Amino acid sequence: MNLDQDERLLLAVKHYLQVRQFSIKISEPLTPEDCAIQSTPDVSPIRWHLAHTTWFFETFLLKTQPSYVVFNEAFETLFNSYYNSVGQPFPRDRRGQISRPGLNEVHQYRQHVDEAMKTCIEQNRFERHEWDVLTLGLQHEQQHQELMLTDIKHGFYSNPLHPAYHDDPKVNILSPLNDDAKSQSSISTCSMRWHCVEEGIVQVGHAGKGGFSFDNETPRHRTYLQQHEISSRCVTNGEFLDFINDKGYTRPDLWLSLGWAHLIQQQWQAPLYWICDGDSWSQFTLSGVLPLNLNEPVCHVSYFEADAFARWAGKRLPTEFEWETSANNAAPCGVFADVLFRNREPIHPQIEAPAEDVGINMFGNVWQWTGSHYSPYPGYRPASGALGEYNGKFMCNQFVLRGGSCATSSDHIRATYRNFFPPETRWQFTSVRLAND
Amino acid sequence: MNLDQDERLLLAVKHYLQVRQFSIKISEPLTPEDCAIQSTPDVSPIRWHLAHTTWFFETFLLKTQPSYVVFNEAFETLFNSYYNSVGQPFPRDRRGQISRPGLNEVHQYRQHVDEAMKTCIEQNRFERHEWDVLTLGLQHEQQHQELMLTDIKHGFYSNPLHPAYHDDPKVNILSPLNDDAKSQSSISTCSMRWHCVEEGIVQVGHAGKGGFSFDNETPRHRTYLQQHEISSRCVTNGEFLDFINDKGYTRPDLWLSLGWAHLIQQQWQAPLYWICDGDSWSQFTLSGVLPLNLNEPVCHVSYFEADAFARWAGKRLPTEFEWETSANNAAPCGVFADVLFRNREPIHPQIEAPAEDVGINMFGNVWQWTGSHYSPYPGYRPASGALGEYNGKFMCNQFVLRGGSCATSSDHIRATYRNFFPPETRWQFTSVRLAND
Amino acid sequence: MNLDQDERLLLAVKHYLQVRQFSIKISEPLTPEDCAIQSTPDVSPIRWHLAHTTWFFETFLLKTQPSYVVFNEAFETLFNSYYNSVGQPFPRDRRGQISRPGLNEVHQYRQHVDEAMKTCIEQNRFERHEWDVLTLGLQHEQQHQELMLTDIKHGFYSNPLHPAYHDDPKVNILSPLNDDAKSQSSISTCSMRWHCVEEGIVQVGHAGKGGFSFDNETPRHRTYLQQHEISSRCVTNGEFLDFINDKGYTRPDLWLSLGWAHLIQQQWQAPLYWICDGDSWSQFTLSGVLPLNLNEPVCHVSYFEADAFARWAGKRLPTEFEWETSANNAAPCGVFADVLFRNREPIHPQIEAPAEDVGINMFGNVWQWTGSHYSPYPGYRPASGALGEYNGKFMCNQFVLRGGSCATSSDHIRATYRNFFPPETRWQFTSVRLAND
Amino acid sequence: MNLDQDERLLLAVKHYLQVRQFSIKISEPLTPEDCAIQSTPDVSPIRWHLAHTTWFFETFLLKTQPSYVVFNEAFETLFNSYYNSVGQPFPRDRRGQISRPGLNEVHQYRQHVDEAMKTCIEQNRFERHEWDVLTLGLQHEQQHQELMLTDIKHGFYSNPLHPAYHDDPKVNILSPLNDDAKSQSSISTCSMRWHCVEEGIVQVGHAGKGGFSFDNETPRHRTYLQQHEISSRCVTNGEFLDFINDKGYTRPDLWLSLGWAHLIQQQWQAPLYWICDGDSWSQFTLSGVLPLNLNEPVCHVSYFEADAFARWAGKRLPTEFEWETSANNAAPCGVFADVLFRNREPIHPQIEAPAEDVGINMFGNVWQWTGSHYSPYPGYRPASGALGEYNGKFMCNQFVLRGGSCATSSDHIRATYRNFFPPETRWQFTSVRLAND
Repeated sequence: MNLDQDERLLLAVKHYLQVRQFSIKISEPLTPEDCAIQSTPDVSPIRWHLAHTTWFFETFLLKTQPSYVVFNEAFETLFNSYYNSVGQPFPRDRRGQISRPGLNEVHQYRQHVDEAMKTCIEQNRFERHEWDVLTLGLQHEQQHQELMLTDIKHGFYSNPLHPAYHDDPKVNILSPLNDDAKSQSSISTCSMRWHCVEEGIVQVGHAGKGGFSFDNETPRHRTYLQQHEISSRCVTNGEFLDFINDKGYTRPDLWLSLGWAHLIQQQWQAPLYWICDGDSWSQFTLSGVLPLNLNEPVCHVSYFEADAFARWAGKRLPTEFEWETSANNAAPCGVFADVLFRNREPIHPQIEAPAEDVGINMFGNVWQWTGSHYSPYPGYRPASGALGEYNGKFMCNQFVLRGGSCATSSDHIRATYRNFFPPETRWQFTSVRLAND
Repeated sequence: MNLDQDERLLLAVKHYLQVRQFSIKISEPLTPEDCAIQSTPDVSPIRWHLAHTTWFFETFLLKTQPSYVVFNEAFETLFNSYYNSVGQPFPRDRRGQISRPGLNEVHQYRQHVDEAMKTCIEQNRFERHEWDVLTLGLQHEQQHQELMLTDIKHGFYSNPLHPAYHDDPKVNILSPLNDDAKSQSSISTCSMRWHCVEEGIVQVGHAGKGGFSFDNETPRHRTYLQQHEISSRCVTNGEFLDFINDKGYTRPDLWLSLGWAHLIQQQWQAPLYWICDGDSWSQFTLSGVLPLNLNEPVCHVSYFEADAFARWAGKRLPTEFEWETSANNAAPCGVFADVLFRNREPIHPQIEAPAEDVGINMFGNVWQWTGSHYSPYPGYRPASGALGEYNGKFMCNQFVLRGGSCATSSDHIRATYRNFFPPETRWQFTSVRLAND
Repeated sequence: MNLDQDERLLLAVKHYLQVRQFSIKISEPLTPEDCAIQSTPDVSPIRWHLAHTTWFFETFLLKTQPSYVVFNEAFETLFNSYYNSVGQPFPRDRRGQISRPGLNEVHQYRQHVDEAMKTCIEQNRFERHEWDVLTLGLQHEQQHQELMLTDIKHGFYSNPLHPAYHDDPKVNILSPLNDDAKSQSSISTCSMRWHCVEEGIVQVGHAGKGGFSFDNETPRHRTYLQQHEISSRCVTNGEFLDFINDKGYTRPDLWLSLGWAHLIQQQWQAPLYWICDGDSWSQFTLSGVLPLNLNEPVCHVSYFEADAFARWAGKRLPTEFEWETSANNAAPCGVFADVLFRNREPIHPQIEAPAEDVGINMFGNVWQWTGSHYSPYPGYRPASGALGEYNGKFMCNQFVLRGGSCATSSDHIRATYRNFFPPETRWQFTSVRLAND
Repeated sequence: MNLDQDERLLLAVKHYLQVRQFSIKISEPLTPEDCAIQSTPDVSPIRWHLAHTTWFFETFLLKTQPSYVVFNEAFETLFNSYYNSVGQPFPRDRRGQISRPGLNEVHQYRQHVDEAMKTCIEQNRFERHEWDVLTLGLQHEQQHQELMLTDIKHGFYSNPLHPAYHDDPKVNILSPLNDDAKSQSSISTCSMRWHCVEEGIVQVGHAGKGGFSFDNETPRHRTYLQQHEISSRCVTNGEFLDFINDKGYTRPDLWLSLGWAHLIQQQWQAPLYWICDGDSWSQFTLSGVLPLNLNEPVCHVSYFEADAFARWAGKRLPTEFEWETSANNAAPCGVFADVLFRNREPIHPQIEAPAEDVGINMFGNVWQWTGSHYSPYPGYRPASGALGEYNGKFMCNQFVLRGGSCATSSDHIRATYRNFFPPETRWQFTSVRLAND
């Protein structure tokens, strides 16, 4: 396509507003109070997400624009997440303890910044490296959109009333009374097949050209894979229930030592959001509490649980490079947040398609824990300045997840994408894919 | 006055609605988010206060009424504070982590209960002991009204933006630009005089007749007072500043051992809400940050600080019975929340009147720590049933405060009234009155 | 008796050495490791007790003597317990983490100080107020002797091997194989009778003359007692077992709110040292694990448990002044540590004598929780200087115990003696005496 | 060498006793109290190490021998470290709270087990797989010997008296008054050179034959190395001081996020055991406090500090496979614990030899943090049964260290050896080797 500059700028504005608008769309069903709470220090209030993503553009792009008028000087500290170079961030675990600025004021803040951004883009005021920051800012906002959905889910679950996020009757809710849900519960998943990969040198990582990537995906480099098999789909709720019924949560020999300590301390007996009703199990979802569908991929398990399940099954988790190598040939066929919203479908993992011809499904639906610690690639260089704090400083005691989930935007994911969380994390849409030597 | 029953019932309805309405009045300047936050486990969200006080009437009066339809069964647990007899209360430190029911729904809950209560009163459906519970429920709500004001203050202070509760220009705000405030800052307090009381047997406590009292004020009984002096007014900010400037917060010999441990751990250097700006001091108030007025009574000090100040001054805190004996002859001349609201004046302690003829001012303005541990009176009997949990079970590791404050309603206080808090508590309007052997 | 000065000095030396020697006697059955451990922050290593009591004499009496050579400068900090005036004490919870000075060196320290003390006394070098400090130092050591016994008990209990302190076959051990023990287990306690006391003014506290008292027992003053009854003996294990069997540890209505929180957190189900063996109960003692003797006074209960038992029984705990008033007329007939040691009998509470003619037994055997918070008496003045830190600064969140125990020396106790501990304390020999309005 | 079976058995006995005796040798200078303390939960009492290493042989070799009489049944729990398959281990953080069995009894336990082991070996009673367990038990004991030395160092450092472990005048103590120490302080280290390694496939890991290895070193496998440089020696105290003087401990941009949080919480300002005396630095060693020798390798740094130093220096830590590849060609020329003991030299890192012809020194002296998370090798299989708990379950949130230290036995180390500790660990002899892309 041959666009002149004005067209490119118009497209850039359109893309900017589209991404920004999706954050608002996610928060639309919420009350001001829903946007205020922080149900555990790991999550953040939705209002904070809306403000912080805005702060990102203001801090890293607008503040240096001569004509820009800062919305509120105090926001610099208040909505800084972890950028020590920018100043002392407001303590993370107290984000739910401040009531002002309120939701309305945060919306005004967003409009103020969006108008300034729009003007700057339209008038082509950004320099070359600032266009990269703009792209990063939109990717950053997409990451927070996923966090918003997972944080809303955790907040609603923490409330004994168990409110549903998808309570709009126009949304195709996965409720027991809903015909689609009923019919879905009778869908079977496909059988788990094993894809064999030969040993040898492979190329992994992002080349850093031809599309956006985070710095942690680079540089592209050679690595050596051992021969292995990788499973064609994720573990299902039914398979995970077998693990539970086989006393998986009471046998320390199946667990990493730290994982067992967590299990004891947190009294884990099942994945997060599973609810035991005597004999049967149900599951809290963004559509409220629903019967556990045994054919869906298991979700909201920690690395510890994923690892223990794999050990119980006589398998292991794939490394991130095993995963990436298989993903290079796989078509994204899972569900993604933007598509689900567009189709008025609930944010929830789908039963993996029964059709045998899909080959292997690596993307969407649920994140997959890999056995790889989140470490820098050989030759890794973080970005300079404050944005160098984006990824590198978190490369300790976290594990890599791959593939994206039903809460990820479809244009945000790729085969080289590295998500990462501490091994005890459960509130993300995280699941188990198996590998074997 | 000779009222027939209908008039009495009408008056009861009026009184009920008046007290209930004052809670709404207090919350009126607040946003839904302001009503949602819990800035520290000691405080509760305003929305919770509004719901819990309503729960009290529903639980202890309406549920036994055959015609009453419970608003929401889940509220029984959600808004139970600490009544183990009623069921497992929702964890106190998580009150700020739930967003539903929202403020609107809580208002509906209040209306639902208020209408049912109105009907029951008008139709004279309550039995004799239920009228006592009704009175208790209103006294309970007045206690929570005071907590609402102190919790709002703490919540706003915890926000780096330091928002003001009294931001209505129609309220006579104590701001630096306000003429009244200016003129007030030049008012001097009266000099501290000492009232001598002879030793001997006195009667203390409430007789339990002729007006409401909590069970902890009874039974009225004899006690023996030693000869002592009690100060005519509370310690001022200026006097407390002398203590600070004399290194009061760095000398362990002035402090109780537990108090010193708290000081070290919490890094106390001044009363809560005092802000040191290099050489000068200011103070966070419900009208925002204002210069510290040296003539006002010191406020927001813990028992530990009150006790340390007294030791430094070569005095001691009065016992609760010394206080009560002097209060029996004193006229309430401090300020109270209901009066301040009516007059559109800010909730803030007043400089104690300079007029020498007041004698001794014991009531209103600021609570006064006594040296007395909160213990049962000889022959104390808690109420039967769940309401027996109201007072007695807290009689451990708390100290008695007397007198009421600018956040107390004027018809809520009396000479026998016993307030109580743990000795490290600072977020109430608490001050120091001295005594001497 | 008419003693000349030399005789008085000789007697003083003898008394000094006698008290000091008893500490050694207590530690004799112990290994160096037994003397090194700290099984919980509340207890201290025995070696620390031996050194700290020595430090007391060195710091408050010898350091000012021109001829005295300090044993080791570093001990000033290392063995300071809580005297901020003397310097920064070594952290209490780390006392069990230091291995040097070892037990031998601590014994040398004791000898060094004892010789210097002996010389000073013999040569009459102390001034009048120093004689008071000497007396205080010996009383202080007696207090630590009681702590040594309770800390040994806790340390041995914490060890899964449950070693016995009294393992010398020459000691009359309360073991199942021991005839005396067997015969004792068949002894019944006397029945609980109630002594009625009329209301009126009484004198309480120590006059401060005619024998030693701690500052917290003074000044003697008038107080007013209500009419009440006080029980003739303490509650027995059998009576306390009735409370347990009546679900006393699972009914929150019987407990103070703080006590219930402790019970939940600490999972209390019985007094400390009670061990449930399915159907029957045994008890860890200084002679090892023995069957629970139902006739012995209950022991190792917290204030919370004492208070809950009293509430369950429809009674209450006596106030400290009620206790003292009854104790004024009571003969000490319980057992004491020095006597038990002399008789080679184990340190353990005795079944209260069945003879009806004892009247009321208030002293020895077990400490008795009173319902009184540990507060200063009217007109209380702490000693000046560092020794003013002995008592006054602990007058917060502790409750008064009266009467002494089987771990107290018989010449250490009196009717006005006030012991005090936080309400959750259980490792002292603490029991329940009841009162009634 | 051609040994017949008897000779082999005699040699096995000799080796067994030699390793076992070295534990005793390490503990010889210690008092019973020194062997009793636990200065922080990470360390264990020396007495516990002596018993636990003995427990290992008893549990995994002797208990199945028909003739063996268990020394004390209770030890099974008491001295179990973390083998859940063997039963519930005694809580790690309470190991310093038990005084029995005392040091003498633990010595008897060792003798009891050693005699039984000697008999079993001599009489050739072990089956083939049991010989492997015997070897493992001796390797296990050598690991604990290193821990004993580091735990002694920590325990003595925690004591304000700072006692010296090497206080035997016959030991060549690194004291300021010691001539050897003086002359040593004037020795310079060699300059840091860079060894370049080409990219390509390398073989790493232990083949599992021809000498002992832990399961975590296997299987040997191919991996791909990028081109890189590795430094010829470790970073010195002087070089690390440059980092400190360049504000290395106050610049968050140099640190991993978790590392910075640790630094803030623990108030790190220098490596563990460094003591700032105003302008100069000294260092606590096993010979007491000594001036900091700038030429010695830096020691007692966490992974966080090693990583931050490398970032400050514009370098990075080597991966464990880069380290191993260079180590394959390096001669061990550092110091080791057994050699130092034999030569009566103190356990302390040596200045790295100035001779240029050494090439690269990888072994002994100090452990070197690698940038590699401790993960299983491809195809890793833990041992079956309880011994499978030895390594695999700790593969989470730990980083690999390589090379051995002055506290390691010389026959315990090899190029494939993987030590591992959490990234905040500082009490081991841990240092920094640099690499570069």
